[in-house]
Amino acid sequence: MHTFHHPDFTAARFADVPDARFVPAPADGVLPDGFFTTTNLPTYVRVAGQWRLPAEPRMDAALVLDPAGDLWAREGRRVRAGDRVAVGRAEDGSEGIFVHAAVFAGDVDGDDEFQFMTSEVSREKPIDYGQMARLLVDERERGGYVVWVAGPAMVHSRARADMTWFVRHGFVSAFLAGNAVAVHDIEASIYGTTLGMTERGQASAGGHGLHMRAINRVRAAGSIAAAVREGTVTDGIMHAIVEQGVPFVLCGSIRDDGPLPEVLTDAVAAQDAMRAHTTRATMAVLVATALHAIATGNMLPAFVMEDRATGRPTSRPRGTSPADWPALHELPTICVDSSEFVVSKLKDRGTHQAFGVVTNAQDFLHILRLYVERELDARVATTATRTAAEAARA
Amino acid sequence: MHTFHHPDFTAARFADVPDARFVPAPADGVLPDGFFTTTNLPTYVRVAGQWRLPAEPRMDAALVLDPAGDLWAREGRRVRAGDRVAVGRAEDGSEGIFVHAAVFAGDVDGDDEFQFMTSEVSREKPIDYGQMARLLVDERERGGYVVWVAGPAMVHSRARADMTWFVRHGFVSAFLAGNAVAVHDIEASIYGTTLGMTERGQASAGGHGLHMRAINRVRAAGSIAAAVREGTVTDGIMHAIVEQGVPFVLCGSIRDDGPLPEVLTDAVAAQDAMRAHTTRATMAVLVATALHAIATGNMLPAFVMEDRATGRPTSRPRGTSPADWPALHELPTICVDSSEFVVSKLKDRGTHQAFGVVTNAQDFLHILRLYVERELDARVATTATRTAAEAARA
Amino acid sequence: MHTFHHPDFTAARFADVPDARFVPAPADGVLPDGFFTTTNLPTYVRVAGQWRLPAEPRMDAALVLDPAGDLWAREGRRVRAGDRVAVGRAEDGSEGIFVHAAVFAGDVDGDDEFQFMTSEVSREKPIDYGQMARLLVDERERGGYVVWVAGPAMVHSRARADMTWFVRHGFVSAFLAGNAVAVHDIEASIYGTTLGMTERGQASAGGHGLHMRAINRVRAAGSIAAAVREGTVTDGIMHAIVEQGVPFVLCGSIRDDGPLPEVLTDAVAAQDAMRAHTTRATMAVLVATALHAIATGNMLPAFVMEDRATGRPTSRPRGTSPADWPALHELPTICVDSSEFVVSKLKDRGTHQAFGVVTNAQDFLHILRLYVERELDARVATTATRTAAEAARA
Amino acid sequence: MHTFHHPDFTAARFADVPDARFVPAPADGVLPDGFFTTTNLPTYVRVAGQWRLPAEPRMDAALVLDPAGDLWAREGRRVRAGDRVAVGRAEDGSEGIFVHAAVFAGDVDGDDEFQFMTSEVSREKPIDYGQMARLLVDERERGGYVVWVAGPAMVHSRARADMTWFVRHGFVSAFLAGNAVAVHDIEASIYGTTLGMTERGQASAGGHGLHMRAINRVRAAGSIAAAVREGTVTDGIMHAIVEQGVPFVLCGSIRDDGPLPEVLTDAVAAQDAMRAHTTRATMAVLVATALHAIATGNMLPAFVMEDRATGRPTSRPRGTSPADWPALHELPTICVDSSEFVVSKLKDRGTHQAFGVVTNAQDFLHILRLYVERELDARVATTATRTAAEAARA
Repeated sequence: MHTFHHPDFTAARFADVPDARFVPAPADGVLPDGFFTTTNLPTYVRVAGQWRLPAEPRMDAALVLDPAGDLWAREGRRVRAGDRVAVGRAEDGSEGIFVHAAVFAGDVDGDDEFQFMTSEVSREKPIDYGQMARLLVDERERGGYVVWVAGPAMVHSRARADMTWFVRHGFVSAFLAGNAVAVHDIEASIYGTTLGMTERGQASAGGHGLHMRAINRVRAAGSIAAAVREGTVTDGIMHAIVEQGVPFVLCGSIRDDGPLPEVLTDAVAAQDAMRAHTTRATMAVLVATALHAIATGNMLPAFVMEDRATGRPTSRPRGTSPADWPALHELPTICVDSSEFVVSKLKDRGTHQAFGVVTNAQDFLHILRLYVERELDARVATTATRTAAEAARA
Repeated sequence: MHTFHHPDFTAARFADVPDARFVPAPADGVLPDGFFTTTNLPTYVRVAGQWRLPAEPRMDAALVLDPAGDLWAREGRRVRAGDRVAVGRAEDGSEGIFVHAAVFAGDVDGDDEFQFMTSEVSREKPIDYGQMARLLVDERERGGYVVWVAGPAMVHSRARADMTWFVRHGFVSAFLAGNAVAVHDIEASIYGTTLGMTERGQASAGGHGLHMRAINRVRAAGSIAAAVREGTVTDGIMHAIVEQGVPFVLCGSIRDDGPLPEVLTDAVAAQDAMRAHTTRATMAVLVATALHAIATGNMLPAFVMEDRATGRPTSRPRGTSPADWPALHELPTICVDSSEFVVSKLKDRGTHQAFGVVTNAQDFLHILRLYVERELDARVATTATRTAAEAARA
Repeated sequence: MHTFHHPDFTAARFADVPDARFVPAPADGVLPDGFFTTTNLPTYVRVAGQWRLPAEPRMDAALVLDPAGDLWAREGRRVRAGDRVAVGRAEDGSEGIFVHAAVFAGDVDGDDEFQFMTSEVSREKPIDYGQMARLLVDERERGGYVVWVAGPAMVHSRARADMTWFVRHGFVSAFLAGNAVAVHDIEASIYGTTLGMTERGQASAGGHGLHMRAINRVRAAGSIAAAVREGTVTDGIMHAIVEQGVPFVLCGSIRDDGPLPEVLTDAVAAQDAMRAHTTRATMAVLVATALHAIATGNMLPAFVMEDRATGRPTSRPRGTSPADWPALHELPTICVDSSEFVVSKLKDRGTHQAFGVVTNAQDFLHILRLYVERELDARVATTATRTAAEAARA
Repeated sequence: MHTFHHPDFTAARFADVPDARFVPAPADGVLPDGFFTTTNLPTYVRVAGQWRLPAEPRMDAALVLDPAGDLWAREGRRVRAGDRVAVGRAEDGSEGIFVHAAVFAGDVDGDDEFQFMTSEVSREKPIDYGQMARLLVDERERGGYVVWVAGPAMVHSRARADMTWFVRHGFVSAFLAGNAVAVHDIEASIYGTTLGMTERGQASAGGHGLHMRAINRVRAAGSIAAAVREGTVTDGIMHAIVEQGVPFVLCGSIRDDGPLPEVLTDAVAAQDAMRAHTTRATMAVLVATALHAIATGNMLPAFVMEDRATGRPTSRPRGTSPADWPALHELPTICVDSSEFVVSKLKDRGTHQAFGVVTNAQDFLHILRLYVERELDARVATTATRTAAEAARA
């Protein structure tokens, strides 16, 4: 059990502190403007020159000085008109109230202020699609290298069309995934199902064999690329990737059926193939996969190096003096999963820069595409306006 | 441990069954067209008039008859060119292969066919926004009564703008929630934060008291409606609800700060207030709340009654003979949550008609609105076309 | 929207049905003994020879016939002393009340009775450790082949001692895992940490490199077995496995550091190695791993074949007639995970026989061991009693 | 995108720093003892008096200086015998290698060291039952006030017997829960089911009405206490609580059936009743409930005040000078849930002192009881030894 030390109110910084100010409540259950809101931490209130601790401490209450001179933490609804209620917002003692937040320093966050909503990843936090869209468009504009990593839920949830859009529009520099993503994407192209499930989410009669038939079709063709060329695979993510010439790595796992011809079944060879992309990455988007996200996180630096001479990202920094060293930027790493757990796990494996988005793959890609389209429109509009203005000036 | 019974192959339905057909594999690791895909269930193969069980049974394999006459379940990658592989899709024996799916009847699903993706609720299943949008627009068109039930994540995740849109456009017949939803919606209107968190998801300095200040402002005004009228609350869900005159019920809980004036702190009174809406409901949308979703589920019938005389939904059916009885429809009940658990729990409490959507509130409302807007546009276009066609005919 | 059909009350089975019986409530808010409890399904009540639907239908209510002759579903708390309340438990009409459960047949469960708690996997369901313990002891006694599959949470959560106990006491026929399980088990043996985390769950200074040092020690020794022999690894799961000569398969993945020498980095070779065990399995215990659990589930048959001639489990069934066919039993498959999702996913991949246990690895192994110890004691006691009795008889 | 600043190596603390030391690898894929393990942060290596950044940075790698004088981060498996590998553990530059951890200061944790497993709550972390058992026994010995808060999963999962044990043995000073906990506990006592589910986890025929019948029995008796006295309720948690005279608060919610007579249906009255216990609490155990755990967390101070005069905990501190002020201790707050989310949510609502245990209620109570029994035995043994020793001395 941790024991806390009281603050030293003889310290210089408390020398000129005034008494806390109390103001009558305007009505039953209504607090005066600027009332002080309590926390659950030890709180000291200066009354008649003396520092005192209120009775019945709790958070989200007001501080009431009763007629007998006793000091209470009391819920607003229990305050009666005329009750003397402390006002002030400062928690550092400067207005006569001191919240002893440092008691937990070290235990919790090293952060001395009492706050709500401090968790790093939560489904209760807003997702800033605008910022992610700007990052993606920026990367495309400046020739960055955006590595996408995907799990099979992306395909099951029918985010294929939106993922395909990102591939076709130049937002995907490399695509890292496993056998299953490619298998179900190709199954969807040939049979309209994933693991036999229709796009309405229903299991289909005879459906359990369809992914095996899809695999066999590609094995017969010799490769995914060949299956695209010969017209066996006519749409979807792998189709777009082959047509656009986007490099991809399909890493094998013991869960794989088949596997497809391009799958690297050796985990060491697969890591070597991934490294060719992780060392070039200037941004990473990890969607709906624990295994591949953590594997990629293990290999990604937390930063991007930009060569000062060329202005280009580099994995081979030059120079032995600060003037030659590359500029360093954080490597934006977005991790999308239906639960907070994968992002926490990723951070627990050292990928502290990961930014968690708790949602499903289908919705994520759909909205992100929408925002990217808006961002592109906005930039076109800005450019057009600027051009017109310049033309007018000329 | 369950013991299974072998099927009775002397039964009439097996009388004229042919031998299974075997076809040579065209290449190493490639199966012949129409190959039979195994399951993990007992499987019987008719060879030379005899029913036999393959060795090393597993799912996702092929059936191979080796030169020694032994029968194997074997992964496609291990099949060599020329190996004899069973073909056929029928699992009922009609093509010489019988999958004994009934062994699990009763244990699992009462469903005799081996299938993948049979779970009722999963983040891996596609969300059919188009269908939900059609339902909502249908309900508005036919004067249905759509009850919305919301939890605070809806507000934290900044789905306020989209929820407000649904209120303003007539898709919300009643709004059921708790104190926190209204508090944080109003905090967002006054201070731009929820529980002190900014819309970028950051905790703000001094933010922990903002929801208390928001509550106090409304208590001082006397009611949410008054706070809207006097200009304290200028946007958001509650603002729209008050302006549109949408009935709402805010149910109290022990978690509540304040509470706000309109909150019904008595759980029995709150249930009575909810019943006024659940008995009229023709559709329910439950977003990001376990407590309120299950409470509402407890009170909702699984069906809607439609009076045959008036054509209107009714909670007081008339008649003692089938001709007078109301028509019955399923009551569409959409339950949105970040995890499968809430929907499973809702079903475990008897709300079997609930349709689960595993995503977050922000994304759900954003995409649903998009689809509803498209549906409305499509219907306008259709009507315009029809009107034009009729005008042309006239 | 589904439309339901009313039942046909002219059918023979309704011919001799009586009117529903109504009994006065004994006090305000108290229902008579044997009161009928409503569901949320369409319900028909026979009053004066006529079938009627109650007003305001909902579940968990009573059926009240008011003085005006109107029929209501009403919560017990709203019933007043003397109100006439329907009694009876039968829902098939035989006591004058018919619950139309079949409306949902096909949609939901194919099960016609309204029930709570029907989900297959839920943290809210009791775990039957006694049954699992009996299965494990039975398997050991009859020479079964129990395959254990483990994920790294087993080691992080410090279930090592209990897992080691199972290995040492002959309950583990084969151990399938990945590189990480072995690495962290060995890190714990050498350094007392897993990924640098102490057994109190704290990150340790300099700890991020300890798993790398552990790997390097084993690579220097040449193999895990060599590291055990030379005294580098002195306790834990891998130590016990090597000492007991339990066969193990460590399957590689792209997430692996190192890897350790015994790891099969090729996914196809790893599957082949796993098959040597899955084809012999008579029971499977899958703990805290999605990847390995699903991979193993893919390879496991849902059943065990027992040769009638030898009485032993076999993967190569003989015979072409029922008399020769092996006996078939369900293959007990226990899947332990902290969330319902992995078990649902496993079932969605066809491993329908999986029995889900929602808890963490540490607690699961600790309690299971306790129950197995009790089961062993009980069997010893029974044998002793029986032997004594036989001795007395002799 | 964050831009980082390079460290200033002209600073005094880097003045006497040596070059990094490189040692040849002893064999292919084996690193020299004491090798330096990389992180994913910017890392500077002093070579020939110059600070340099390695190429292809990543975590979990070694630093290799190749024959051409280039510096690489390279996985151990790719190192060949004789390659020059950096050794050293210091990351502060004192051995010639500097890890620039401060780049993320402020962004992440304010903690400058790269570490794994830093998340606050995770199913992957060990649960220290021994510590919790010692706390509980300490509290009983010193007359502390342990508040237990429970959700219905405790009853569904059949932790009733263990919870009853804690009540009977004096570890429960107050019990806070909702209607459902008491209803299902009583249903289990009367009918052997919870929500109609048997203790084997099966839904039972006719079971959906059993909780309603249990409620009605208690309402007929007039109170839970009366139902215990008259023999309607003969075992379980509520039975033990009534018999032991443990104070309890059952708080109403809109999800409640019935409710039971003792339930406080008014949320404000319920909070007032809870406050009588939260202001006295010296320890809190919150099991399997989000609503009640967060409600209690809102009301609990993060600390216990101990009056110096009486040595007893107090909620009404005296004194205006440090000598009179009570001693302050952290209030141990244990939060048990199947997912990390509830604990994170609790912390996000300001209960930063909460200590999360991710497991299910059944296993938690079973193991905790076991450890408490062991702790009691150990203390008895210690006392006996001490007494014997003292007797011997006398």
